[in-house]
Amino acid sequence: MLAVALGFSAAQPASSQRAQTGRADPLPSWNDGAAKRGIIDFVTRVTREGGPDFVPVADRIATLDNDGTLWVERPLPAEVYFIFARVRELAARNPSLKERQPFKAALEGDAAYFHEAGKKAVLELFVATETGMDQERFAAEARRFLEKWRHPKLDRPFTEIAYRPMIELLAYLRRSGFQTWICSGGTIDFLRVFAPQIYGIPIDQIIGTELKLESRMEGDRLVVWRLPEIEAINDKEGKPVGIDRQIGKRPIFVAGNVGNYGDIAMMQYSKGRRGPSFQLLINHDDAAREFAYGEKDNASLSSAKKYGFTVANIKSDWKTVFGIGQAAAAK
Amino acid sequence: MLAVALGFSAAQPASSQRAQTGRADPLPSWNDGAAKRGIIDFVTRVTREGGPDFVPVADRIATLDNDGTLWVERPLPAEVYFIFARVRELAARNPSLKERQPFKAALEGDAAYFHEAGKKAVLELFVATETGMDQERFAAEARRFLEKWRHPKLDRPFTEIAYRPMIELLAYLRRSGFQTWICSGGTIDFLRVFAPQIYGIPIDQIIGTELKLESRMEGDRLVVWRLPEIEAINDKEGKPVGIDRQIGKRPIFVAGNVGNYGDIAMMQYSKGRRGPSFQLLINHDDAAREFAYGEKDNASLSSAKKYGFTVANIKSDWKTVFGIGQAAAAK
Repeated sequence: MLAVALGFSAAQPASSQRAQTGRADPLPSWNDGAAKRGIIDFVTRVTREGGPDFVPVADRIATLDNDGTLWVERPLPAEVYFIFARVRELAARNPSLKERQPFKAALEGDAAYFHEAGKKAVLELFVATETGMDQERFAAEARRFLEKWRHPKLDRPFTEIAYRPMIELLAYLRRSGFQTWICSGGTIDFLRVFAPQIYGIPIDQIIGTELKLESRMEGDRLVVWRLPEIEAINDKEGKPVGIDRQIGKRPIFVAGNVGNYGDIAMMQYSKGRRGPSFQLLINHDDAAREFAYGEKDNASLSSAKKYGFTVANIKSDWKTVFGIGQAAAAK
Repeated sequence: MLAVALGFSAAQPASSQRAQTGRADPLPSWNDGAAKRGIIDFVTRVTREGGPDFVPVADRIATLDNDGTLWVERPLPAEVYFIFARVRELAARNPSLKERQPFKAALEGDAAYFHEAGKKAVLELFVATETGMDQERFAAEARRFLEKWRHPKLDRPFTEIAYRPMIELLAYLRRSGFQTWICSGGTIDFLRVFAPQIYGIPIDQIIGTELKLESRMEGDRLVVWRLPEIEAINDKEGKPVGIDRQIGKRPIFVAGNVGNYGDIAMMQYSKGRRGPSFQLLINHDDAAREFAYGEKDNASLSSAKKYGFTVANIKSDWKTVFGIGQAAAAK
């Protein structure tokens, strides 16, 4: 209910939104700076009826990356910890896994192994832990994980690792008539379990990596079954493709982050729109309050410079990093 | 604008919807009979707050097939005529195509050839005519077709081959808080060009057959390019998979048609929902007003009997078949 109610709140008349957003600072957890001013200026311009940059509500599409943009992705993304938790359950039933890689590294929470071994190792675990069940069973497993496990470094539930400034941004965009979509490299089905509660984003506004699925009869009941194969990876050049498939319009607002080259193509796609657009790139430079990391060749920051994306540095642009609950998403 | 405004009208409070729908016959083009009574009874039950079958707005998902359910699919589906029109343009530039099958049959409008040669022949034409361009160019081509060409048997624009009773049903469902999605075997990109105008369905509520796509740079501009390969056929057992991917919930209301076995799995999927659901199967038995056709083994009608789907016979259940324009969808 919550999720759809929020999705539909985008249908508020623009005039009442402006009255609302004009009343107070829409982004109180952001320091005054180029990023905050850029966001507010853009939203004001595209929602000003009769103005030269006005964009009708139907085209106010925002797509935001999740891991590293809306919530923490270090030492490893939450979905990887979910996979680790599932491996523990498998190893309890089949102890020989304890001696086999990549299961051994998963059981030991060895993030370094996975940064070294790369996607192939994660994929092997993924197939072993997230497939071979129907969609309803998977959702129940993911829900159980989120209720039970805590982030290993931040020592808090995974439902509380979202960035407060970004939750405010989502609410501000929606109040301004935007549809807020997630466009993540994580799997769509994992995202669906927490996005409505944490971000106020309904499950049909999530674009993610997709598993191969098939219809299967279980007795007289048709279920959608998770096959052990990835169908489409929603990362890098895959993101514009995922957006085209599920939305069919170039986003006018995108947010992504430095760290894995994952959002450059999505930002270029948005920039290629005829008409106004805004690209926000989160830069993880704050080891004290979060995690500091980047790219060896600075590709994301370089393309920000080249194409005119706006960079938000966590250290200087965010007054507060965490500390907002479910209630805020409902605003 | 129209499309999204209509999509969002689903957010009306249930009470005002009931007042509205109680006022007049919500389905004036339907004869009084089991199908009409079944639909109205179902919608009334699931929208009655506090009633035993009440379904919250967030779960009021309706998925409707397009060809043969919302509009005419005979002698051939509209998208096939679009492909034929594109073949003519290709043949004008490359006359040798006139002697080569399946191009020859396409140029002669030889429906019998395609019913015989089957999907492989259509696929060959599809690749030759609908791929190798970016999405924006494709949309422009499809729009040009719909503005220019007329249905060969009904002698009217393709924008006027929708069934009036189904347009009324879509509007009735939306007034009752349902999200109305198309779930079609046609390609998502072709559907997107006309669904907002004809059905009041926004382009992000369309599930269809998907082409393989890729991100590609054209100079400094990133475009989504149509590759010569089908990625996912959204027909038969593919439909529950498509619905899971884009909506993530079992539909409580589905509509499909007899003729190509295309909607049985989608209906079983809906029927497998825990809680109330309704499945409507359109039976094409009216050669005088439309086209009469069925399946040799009566598979769709048999499964209607077995699972309890509701059959609507065009001859007896529809007072009027055609004759409604864009204006009606806006109601």
